[in-house]
Amino acid sequence: MTPSQYTPEEPISSIATALAPAALGIVRTSGKDCIELVSKVFSRPKALLEAGGNTLVYGWIVDKADSNDDGHKIDEVMLAVYKGPKSFTGEDMVEIFCHGGPAVVTAIQNLMLKIGFRQANRGEYTFRAYINGKTDLTRAEAVKEIIDSHTDASRSHAAGRLSGSLFAEIDSIKKLIIDTLASIEVEIEYPEDEETIADTFDRKDIELAISRLQSLVDSWKGEKLYQDGARVVLAGRTNAGKSSLFNAILKEERAIVSDVEGTTRDWLESWASINGIPVRLFDTAGLRETEDVVEAQGVQISRNLAQNADVVLYLVDGREGLNEEDRDFIEKCREPLIVVFTKIDLIEEKGRCGEKQRFAPLEGEVENAGGIWNVGKTFPSVTISSKTGSGMAELYEKITAVITAGVSTERQQAGLGSARQKEAVAEALECVKHALVSADDNYTLDAVVQDLEDAIDFLGEVTGDVTPDDVLGSIFANFCVGK
Amino acid sequence: MTPSQYTPEEPISSIATALAPAALGIVRTSGKDCIELVSKVFSRPKALLEAGGNTLVYGWIVDKADSNDDGHKIDEVMLAVYKGPKSFTGEDMVEIFCHGGPAVVTAIQNLMLKIGFRQANRGEYTFRAYINGKTDLTRAEAVKEIIDSHTDASRSHAAGRLSGSLFAEIDSIKKLIIDTLASIEVEIEYPEDEETIADTFDRKDIELAISRLQSLVDSWKGEKLYQDGARVVLAGRTNAGKSSLFNAILKEERAIVSDVEGTTRDWLESWASINGIPVRLFDTAGLRETEDVVEAQGVQISRNLAQNADVVLYLVDGREGLNEEDRDFIEKCREPLIVVFTKIDLIEEKGRCGEKQRFAPLEGEVENAGGIWNVGKTFPSVTISSKTGSGMAELYEKITAVITAGVSTERQQAGLGSARQKEAVAEALECVKHALVSADDNYTLDAVVQDLEDAIDFLGEVTGDVTPDDVLGSIFANFCVGK
Repeated sequence: MTPSQYTPEEPISSIATALAPAALGIVRTSGKDCIELVSKVFSRPKALLEAGGNTLVYGWIVDKADSNDDGHKIDEVMLAVYKGPKSFTGEDMVEIFCHGGPAVVTAIQNLMLKIGFRQANRGEYTFRAYINGKTDLTRAEAVKEIIDSHTDASRSHAAGRLSGSLFAEIDSIKKLIIDTLASIEVEIEYPEDEETIADTFDRKDIELAISRLQSLVDSWKGEKLYQDGARVVLAGRTNAGKSSLFNAILKEERAIVSDVEGTTRDWLESWASINGIPVRLFDTAGLRETEDVVEAQGVQISRNLAQNADVVLYLVDGREGLNEEDRDFIEKCREPLIVVFTKIDLIEEKGRCGEKQRFAPLEGEVENAGGIWNVGKTFPSVTISSKTGSGMAELYEKITAVITAGVSTERQQAGLGSARQKEAVAEALECVKHALVSADDNYTLDAVVQDLEDAIDFLGEVTGDVTPDDVLGSIFANFCVGK
Repeated sequence: MTPSQYTPEEPISSIATALAPAALGIVRTSGKDCIELVSKVFSRPKALLEAGGNTLVYGWIVDKADSNDDGHKIDEVMLAVYKGPKSFTGEDMVEIFCHGGPAVVTAIQNLMLKIGFRQANRGEYTFRAYINGKTDLTRAEAVKEIIDSHTDASRSHAAGRLSGSLFAEIDSIKKLIIDTLASIEVEIEYPEDEETIADTFDRKDIELAISRLQSLVDSWKGEKLYQDGARVVLAGRTNAGKSSLFNAILKEERAIVSDVEGTTRDWLESWASINGIPVRLFDTAGLRETEDVVEAQGVQISRNLAQNADVVLYLVDGREGLNEEDRDFIEKCREPLIVVFTKIDLIEEKGRCGEKQRFAPLEGEVENAGGIWNVGKTFPSVTISSKTGSGMAELYEKITAVITAGVSTERQQAGLGSARQKEAVAEALECVKHALVSADDNYTLDAVVQDLEDAIDFLGEVTGDVTPDDVLGSIFANFCVGK
C-alpha cells in the first residue's frame, strides 16, 4: 500500500483472530462512520452511539435485514469502542469480541461486508496507523515480527523494536548527523579561515555515527536468525537413532508453534527451540545404498535436505561406529556438520562406561583434537543418549556454536528487524563513511553535505519519513489480514 | 465442576483465542484481586487500578521480575476491565488483548501463572457465570455449541438458544405445571366436592404442557443433525468420478471450518454444507476386486465407511452403466443409498442429450418409477455432471431428503441443544403424562402432585436450577479452555 491508497473514508473490516474453534474471536473495524455502521446491526444502537472512547458495550450482533426472528441473531458480543485519533489506526474503531467459532466470526464479518465495510487488505490497519503518525515503520514491522515469533527469545527481540528501541537509536544517530550538517552549514554561510573541511565539524560525532551504524548492520545476522531460525537436518544410516533424537529434542525443546508437525512419507519436520534460537528440525529417511527405487528417492531427498541445512547432525550408532558409507556421506556433505554418536546408554549398560568410549574407528583413521578423524576436514563430534539425555546439553551447545558462528547473539539495545532496514542502514553507513573520506581528502563542502543528507534520507527510509511507495507497498503486503 | 469447586478467591487465567499466528490474541482472567494482580505486570498500574468497569486501558505487559531491560517487555496491549457483578463471570475480570502470535499469548499466560493466577479449567469461566446466576445451563451449553458450529445454520440454531429461547420455553412450560399444582394444592387444603381428581385442575394446561414437551423432544433429532452433521460417503468403481464430485461439492459448499481436510492414503474427508446442514464428506478408494493386498485393504475400508454412513452416494460412470460389481456392492450396502450417474456432460457432448439417457441396464433389469432397478429394494437415482454442475441441485435435494427423513427441520422457536437436555425433557414429559393418567384413573391427589413435582425437577435440571453435581461436571468438562 502506498500513501495514495490511504482511504479513510472507506471503513474496513476483517477477522483478526485465527479461524479455529476457540473461546473468543475478534472482528476488527476501522474508518469513517464505522461506529454508526456497526450500530445498524447492534441490539443497543443508542448505547453504542453514545459510548465514549476506550469503552466496552455489551449487546448482540443482529442482522436486522433478516426477517427470520431467530435467524437474525448472530452472536452475543462485547464491542470495544475507540475514538480517533486515540486508537490503534488513529481512526474511529470498533472491535467486536464474539465467540470464537469459525462460523460465528465468519457470519459477523460477512454481515459487516453486507452493511458497507470493505474487507481490509493485509496490514491495512497498521498501514493506516503509520499514515496517521501513530507508528513508524520499525514499529510497524515489529508487529508482524512479534506475531510470527517461534520462540520466546524471538518474541522478546521483536518486543524491543515494537517498544521503539530501534526507532530511538536511528533517531539518535540522525541527530548526530544533523548536528554535523548544521556546523557545516554555518561554515558555508559564514566561512571562517578553517584549515580543512574536517575542521568544520566535530569528527567524533561522525565517527560515533559510523560505529553505531556499523553495529546496527552487524546486528542483522543475529536478528535474522531469531526470526527465520536455522535448518538443522538429522541424517545417518537406518537405525542410527534419528527418530529417537528428533523426538527427544521436540519433547524437551519444542518451539512455541501452532502448526501440526509436517509429516510426509519422505521426512518429518518441526520447529524446536535450542537455547532460545528457533530451529527447524528435519528427520530424514535412513541412508542405505539400495536397489529399491522408492527408497533410493528417499536417500536422495536426505542428501538434498542436508545440502540446504545450516547444520547437519550426522548420526552414528555408537556401538557400530563409522563405516565406509557414513564416511562417504560425510565427505560429500556440505559443512557445517556435527557427528553424533548415539545410544551411549546401551554401551553404558554393558558396563563399558567410565572409560571413554572410542567407537570403532576405520582402519587408518586418525582421531585428532578437534574431531573424530582427519580426512582433510575436521568435524566436531558428540556422544549422546536420546533415552537418558546424556550428552544432550553438549549437543545443544555445539549446535548453537555452529549456527551462531559469526553472528552477534549478544543482546543489544537496538537491533535491525528486517532485510529492508539492513539495506537502508548499510547505505546510510556508506554515505557517512564517504563523507568522512571526502572531508579528510579536503574535497568540497558541498560533497560532504550531499553525503550526509543522503545518509539522513536512507535513515528516514528505515523509520518511514521518506520511504518510497514501492518499499511501503512490499512492507505491508507481508502482513496478515486483520493487522 | 460442581458448585463445591467454585473458588472465586482463586483468580484464573487462560489463553482464549486459537494458538495460531493472527493479528490479535486474548488472554482472559477472572476472580478475586485479578485487577490488582494484572496491575503488577502492567506498565501503567495506576491507570488500570483506577479504571472503571467496561473500559479499555492501553499499555505494556512487562515482567517486572526480569532484570533484563529489554527482555521484560512482553507485548503492547489493551486491557478490557470488567467489574463484578457486571461481567461475563460475575467476578472482576481483565481481558488482555495482545498481538496474536503463539509466542506472545503463551508468554503472557505464563507470566499470569507466575504472578499467582491458576490455569483455568475447561469451561470454568462459563461455570463461574452459571454459579453466579449470570447464565442458565441451556445458554451455557449454547456457548459451546456456537463455538463448534460447522455451518451458519448450525450457528443460528445455537444463537437462538444462547439468546434464551429454550430457557424461556422451559420456563413457560414449568409455569403451566406450577399453576396446575397450585390448583391441586388448593383442593388439598380446602377440599370441595369435586367429582374426580381431573376436575381439580385445568386439563387444557396439562395437555398443552405435554404437547410442548413432546415438540421439544421431537426437535432434538433435527438439532443434533445441525450439531453433529451427517456422514456422506462417496463410493463406486475406480474412475466412476468420485474425486471430481468430492471436489465439486467442496468448491461450492465447503462448510465453515478451519481444519485442513484430512488426507490419508485410504480416504479423504472434509466438511461441507448441504442446504445449511453440516455434512462430513468421505471420498473412498475405488472398488475393484483385486489380488493386490494393499488395494484390497482400501476396498475393505470403503465398505466399512459405507456401512457407517448416513447416506452412501454410489457413483456410476453414466457412459458405462451398472455392472455386476456395482450391483454386488449396492445390494450388500446398508441403506440409505443414492445411485449417482456421473459424467453426463460427456454424453451430452456426443449429442445424445435431449432424450433421456437410460444408461446401459443389466440384462433383465427393470427400471421402475422410484429408482433404477428393482432387486427387492428400490434406490433413488440422479444424473449429474461434476464439471458443468448439471443435476447437482437435484443431488443436494435427494441427499437432504435422506438425511432429514423423520427429522423436523422446520425452524422452531425453541429446540433442544444437547442429549442431556433431551433426556431430562423426555423424563419430564413422561411424568406429566403419568400425572394425567393418574388423574383420569382418579388415583390419589398425592400421586398426581408427586408426578408434577418430578416433572418440574427434571425441567429444573435442564436449566440448572436443580442439576446434580455429576451432570454439571460432565457439562463443563466438554468445553474448551478459556470459555
